[in-house]
Amino acid sequence: MIDTVGFDGDDTLWHSETEFAVTQTMFCELLAPHVPDPSVDLEARLVATEGANLEVFGYGVKGFTLSMIETALDVSEGRVPASVIRTLLDRGKAMLSHPVELLDGVEEVIDELHGRYRLILVTKGDLMHQESKVAGSGLAERFDHVEIVAEKEPATYARILHRHGVEPARFVMVGNSVRSDVLPVLAIGGRAVHVPYHLTWQHEHADHDGDVPTLATIKDLPAWLTAQG
Amino acid sequence: MIDTVGFDGDDTLWHSETEFAVTQTMFCELLAPHVPDPSVDLEARLVATEGANLEVFGYGVKGFTLSMIETALDVSEGRVPASVIRTLLDRGKAMLSHPVELLDGVEEVIDELHGRYRLILVTKGDLMHQESKVAGSGLAERFDHVEIVAEKEPATYARILHRHGVEPARFVMVGNSVRSDVLPVLAIGGRAVHVPYHLTWQHEHADHDGDVPTLATIKDLPAWLTAQG
Repeated sequence: MIDTVGFDGDDTLWHSETEFAVTQTMFCELLAPHVPDPSVDLEARLVATEGANLEVFGYGVKGFTLSMIETALDVSEGRVPASVIRTLLDRGKAMLSHPVELLDGVEEVIDELHGRYRLILVTKGDLMHQESKVAGSGLAERFDHVEIVAEKEPATYARILHRHGVEPARFVMVGNSVRSDVLPVLAIGGRAVHVPYHLTWQHEHADHDGDVPTLATIKDLPAWLTAQG
Repeated sequence: MIDTVGFDGDDTLWHSETEFAVTQTMFCELLAPHVPDPSVDLEARLVATEGANLEVFGYGVKGFTLSMIETALDVSEGRVPASVIRTLLDRGKAMLSHPVELLDGVEEVIDELHGRYRLILVTKGDLMHQESKVAGSGLAERFDHVEIVAEKEPATYARILHRHGVEPARFVMVGNSVRSDVLPVLAIGGRAVHVPYHLTWQHEHADHDGDVPTLATIKDLPAWLTAQG
């Protein structure tokens, strides 16, 4: 019997990775003329820098912007023009100010579940930006709790469920990331529903063994929950 | 009768502003040779950029680093060498990785109060960096709750006290910032003790009317609490 539903934010309730992908493409186009070594794979270099910086920067647009600037310095061997750095900075700010766009069906699903289940939003990343996205989503009032975390590990979920007095067996987490929304919840005895997004950030890639319920769209969630009894 | 004590983190429990000040001096020295207009006040320009970016970046080292890079592009009129941008980036990373240095007497005071009062750490800024500072402080286990927030407004404190079932009249907040640690707590009917740090970030400047208890050092806090009965 499930009585509490957790939702991821980025790419589960609202679009996020699309903006990163657009920016990454822009980054490659901007930098290409300034790279002396034609064999350099710009996208791979950016992803590698992001990965190396995750431990110190954490998730979010500000760290991503700093990683773009660092990669620009690296691949251009210091020859990147200041105007390109400026464009990368401006692009980071534009991402932080980008209006929240809900995924199709999200508002209706949250409305339908609100009042029937306890709803907890568990979102990862930059505190200020996530707060602003929660506010911009217009959904905040329909969640019983909002938890913004630096990392989604089993201990993170255990702490949140403990704080709100939720038994793991009565909890299901809904999200697009197997690594962050599915595996750590299964690890503490909770349940998870995977709703893939059409893009997955390379540092979020992970697989599950196929036993995890996977929905094509969040619109299928209410029926899935009802079927659990 | 006070039963719950809130503590600010940066510049109340551990040093923070000192590192920003060192970096700001380094910024001015690094940029000076690349500024065509000799009348430019580098420090004032950096502070102004930080202020303008606060709404979109929030608090913390990553936003500060991006603001340094933006200011460098501005004041040099695009002529800043890539090597200077690299140094600013490296300096940001060094700040994020800098070991936590507790203020004198902090550990003893927290030890003395632990168990006698409920202790809540209320710290503002970058989620990942603050979590890493809390962990690095070695004090985490002695706090009943740790709250990392994006902004310290009256509603922030009201939400935290409500969540933990603390009556404002039984709560005192201890911190170095009148704007963030004192005024918003007084606004919701709580009490506050001001423990000034020798440096105050310009965007934290505020005054109180003189009625707020002010201690020269956190070492005086246990005696002050005892005197409240």
